[in-house]
Amino acid sequence: MTKPLRLAIAGLGTVGAGIVKIVQQHDDLLAARAGRPIEIVAISARSRSKDRGVDLSGYVWEDDAVALARRDDVDVLIEVIGGEDGPAKAAVETALSNGKHVVSANKALLAIHGQNLATLAEENGVALRFEAAVAGGIPIVKALTEGLAANKIERIMGVMNGTCNYILTVMEDTGADYADVLRDAQELGYAEADPTVDVGGFDAAHKLSLLAATAFGTQVDFGNVKVEGIERISLTDINHVANMGFRIKLLGVARMNDDGLEQRMQPCLVPADSPLGTLDGVSNMVIVEGDHVGQIVLQGPGAGMGPTASAVMGDVMDIARGLIIPAFGQPAASLTKVAISNTGVDAEYYLRFSLADEAGVMAAVSTTLGDHGISINRMHQYNHDGDAAPVIIVTHAVSRAKLDGALGVITAMSACLEKPIAIRIETV
Amino acid sequence: MTKPLRLAIAGLGTVGAGIVKIVQQHDDLLAARAGRPIEIVAISARSRSKDRGVDLSGYVWEDDAVALARRDDVDVLIEVIGGEDGPAKAAVETALSNGKHVVSANKALLAIHGQNLATLAEENGVALRFEAAVAGGIPIVKALTEGLAANKIERIMGVMNGTCNYILTVMEDTGADYADVLRDAQELGYAEADPTVDVGGFDAAHKLSLLAATAFGTQVDFGNVKVEGIERISLTDINHVANMGFRIKLLGVARMNDDGLEQRMQPCLVPADSPLGTLDGVSNMVIVEGDHVGQIVLQGPGAGMGPTASAVMGDVMDIARGLIIPAFGQPAASLTKVAISNTGVDAEYYLRFSLADEAGVMAAVSTTLGDHGISINRMHQYNHDGDAAPVIIVTHAVSRAKLDGALGVITAMSACLEKPIAIRIETV
Repeated sequence: MTKPLRLAIAGLGTVGAGIVKIVQQHDDLLAARAGRPIEIVAISARSRSKDRGVDLSGYVWEDDAVALARRDDVDVLIEVIGGEDGPAKAAVETALSNGKHVVSANKALLAIHGQNLATLAEENGVALRFEAAVAGGIPIVKALTEGLAANKIERIMGVMNGTCNYILTVMEDTGADYADVLRDAQELGYAEADPTVDVGGFDAAHKLSLLAATAFGTQVDFGNVKVEGIERISLTDINHVANMGFRIKLLGVARMNDDGLEQRMQPCLVPADSPLGTLDGVSNMVIVEGDHVGQIVLQGPGAGMGPTASAVMGDVMDIARGLIIPAFGQPAASLTKVAISNTGVDAEYYLRFSLADEAGVMAAVSTTLGDHGISINRMHQYNHDGDAAPVIIVTHAVSRAKLDGALGVITAMSACLEKPIAIRIETV
Repeated sequence: MTKPLRLAIAGLGTVGAGIVKIVQQHDDLLAARAGRPIEIVAISARSRSKDRGVDLSGYVWEDDAVALARRDDVDVLIEVIGGEDGPAKAAVETALSNGKHVVSANKALLAIHGQNLATLAEENGVALRFEAAVAGGIPIVKALTEGLAANKIERIMGVMNGTCNYILTVMEDTGADYADVLRDAQELGYAEADPTVDVGGFDAAHKLSLLAATAFGTQVDFGNVKVEGIERISLTDINHVANMGFRIKLLGVARMNDDGLEQRMQPCLVPADSPLGTLDGVSNMVIVEGDHVGQIVLQGPGAGMGPTASAVMGDVMDIARGLIIPAFGQPAASLTKVAISNTGVDAEYYLRFSLADEAGVMAAVSTTLGDHGISINRMHQYNHDGDAAPVIIVTHAVSRAKLDGALGVITAMSACLEKPIAIRIETV
C-alpha cells in the first residue's frame, strides 16, 4: 500500500493553512506512520490571491469547491469551509457521491445533516470523519467510537466552547462584567462580531449533539438540545458560587434515560476542585462515563490552527491506513431515532432572585417553592440594592419541571423584579 | 463481514473475568458497533475450579495457554496472564506464529520483548495490541498512534502507577508516614506483598517505555529508563513542598533530545494547581505534547477489572473491524534504536539535607553548590532535630549532571548525616 493518499482541501482559512503546514512539514513522519505518502493535490477557497503564510504553488487551484470535490485525482476531500449549507454541503455531498472520503471540521453541517451524510458515505463505501468538529485537538470522537467501544456510555459531558470558558474565566480573574469581557474578547479576536453562536451556546450544542449520537448510537438531533447561553451570568453569581466552592461553566451533558435522550447545554455549577472546575481559559474538556471503564477525562485546546489541523490530519491518517468505520461508530441505518427525555436526573439548583423590599415577599417565595415540593438547602438575603433585595437560594435535588413550575409562579409576582436566575449544580 | 470474531482468553484473574463480563453483557452492543458478533470460544488459567463470579460453562477449557493459542477455532488470543516470560510469552509467540491476533495487558512482556513480538506480528500479518498495558482504561496508545498521529510528539509524561499515587495522596491527607500507609495499602489489597515493582517505579517505567516507543518511533527500551521510586519520600518533604505550592508525584517523562532519548520515572514536584497536581488516589494521568496539537491531558482509572477489561476490548473491537496497524504505530523495522540522552532539560530541584549542627557546614554546602555552578533560589534551615539540622534548598535550573556532582561532594562530607533528597521540579 505505497500509493500516495491524495488530498483536496476546500477552504483555506486558519485551519486549512494549518493542514497545509502539517503535510509540508511532516511528510516523512506521516508516510512512516501511514505506510504511504500523504499528498495535497488540489485546493479551493474564496480568494486565490490572499497570502496565507504557506506555499500553495504546488497545488492545483479550483475556484469552485464542488469542482474540487469531483476531481479524479483526489482520494479525500477535506472540508474546512464551514456553514451548515451552501458550498460546504454541496462539496461534501459531491465528494461522497463520487466515492471520495471526506474529513470535515464543520460541526454545524454534521449536526444538521449528519445522518444523511453518514448514510451517503456508507452507500458509497467511503469514510466520513469529523474529529475536528468537536473539541478541537482532543481525540474524543475516536475515544468514543473506538477506544471505549466496549462500554455502554452512561453520560458524556464537557466544556466545548473555548470562547465562553475564556469569558467566564476572565470575569472571575478580573472582576470585570460580562459585557466588558465580551467586548475585549471581540477586540482580541477570541469572539465573533456576532457572538450569539458562541455565548448563546449553539456552537457547543452542535458539538454535544455529535457526541451524543456517537455515544448512544442515536441519530444526531441538534434540534432537541436544550440550549441556554452565558449571557445572563453576572459577577454577582460568580462571586456567590465561588464562596460556596463552585465555578460556573457552560456545560454540555448528554445522557440516555428510560424515556429518551437528554441533551442540554447550559451554565452549570461544578465543584471548584473537580477537573471541570479547574479548567481555565480557552481549553476544552470532555468527560465520558462508561459502565466498565468508569470516568475518563480528556482535556486540551478546543480550537486554533494547530489543534484543529491535528484533528483533521488524525482522521486523514486513519483513512491512509485503511481504517474505515461508519461516521458515528455504527452503520447509519442502525442509529436509532429516540424520544426527547422529559425526566432527567434531579439536581440541586442555585437560584438568584431580585425581590421588592416588601413585607411577606420572602414568605411568598418560600411558600411557592414548598408548594412545588422544593426544599431549601441554603438561603441568603444580601444588602439591598436600592429597592431590590437580592436573595440566593440553593435547593435540594428537584426536577427541572417542578422548579420551572415554581419559578413561573414567582416570576409572575409583582414583587419579583427580574426574571430569576436558576443554575443547575451538576454532579461531576 | 458478519463472521464472528472468536476470542481465547489466557488468564482468568480479575481482568480476564472482566473481559468475560463485557462480552456476555454487551453482546448486542459489541456486534452493532463491530458489524459482527464477538464470541469467546476457549479459555485457560491455572485453576479450573476457582469461582470467578462469571459463567464459563460455554467455553472450551485448555489447561495449557500454549495449546489455547494454537487452536484452529480462535482468531484472537487475549493474554492476561502477566509476567515477562513463562507461559505468557510462550502463548503470545505461539498465537502470533499461528496467524492469530494478540491483545495483551502485559506491560512487562511488552516492555522487554516488544520489538521482537511486534516484528513477529507483522511477519504473520496480524495485530499485536496493548492498550490495557498502559494507564488502564485511558485510551492513550490509540491517541498516540492514531488520533495524534500527525504530530511530532515533543514530550510525553504522566502518573502511571495508581498504587504510588494512592500512597502519596493518603500521606498528604492523613499525615501518616510512608511505611504505615504502605502497610495499610497492602492490607486493603492496593499494594502487593512485595511492593517493589510498584513503589520502586518499575511498573510505571514499563509503561513509560511503551509510550516512549510509540510516541517517538523508537525501539522500546525499558532497560534505559532512569527509575527512582517513592520509598524515600517523607512527610517532611510533602509538607515543605506543599508550603511552596507543589505536590510530589511519581512522574514519568519521555522526551527526544538532540543526543538521544530521555526516559525517566522519578518523584517530581508539580504545581498543586496543575492538572497533574490535582490528581488524587489511584487515578492515572498522561499528558501528551505535540508540535501542532499542543498539550492534551488524559485522565482515568489506571487499573481494576472494568477499566482494564474495557481497554482490552477496545483493542478487540478494532481487530473485529479490521483496523490493523503495527503495534507501535509504524512498522517494527522502521523503529529506530536510539542513544540514551545525557543532556535533558535543566530543571530546578528541591533538595533536603540533614546536616550536623557545626560551624561552617552551611557555608561548605553553599560553596559546593556554587562551585558546581548551581545557584540557590530559596533556602530554609529548620529547627534542629537532635544534632541534625534539616536544610531545604530550592535551586535555580541546573543540569542533573552538575547537581549529582555537587551532591556527591556534599554526601561525602562528614557533616552530611543522610543521603540528601533531590526532587526535580518538572515544568508542566
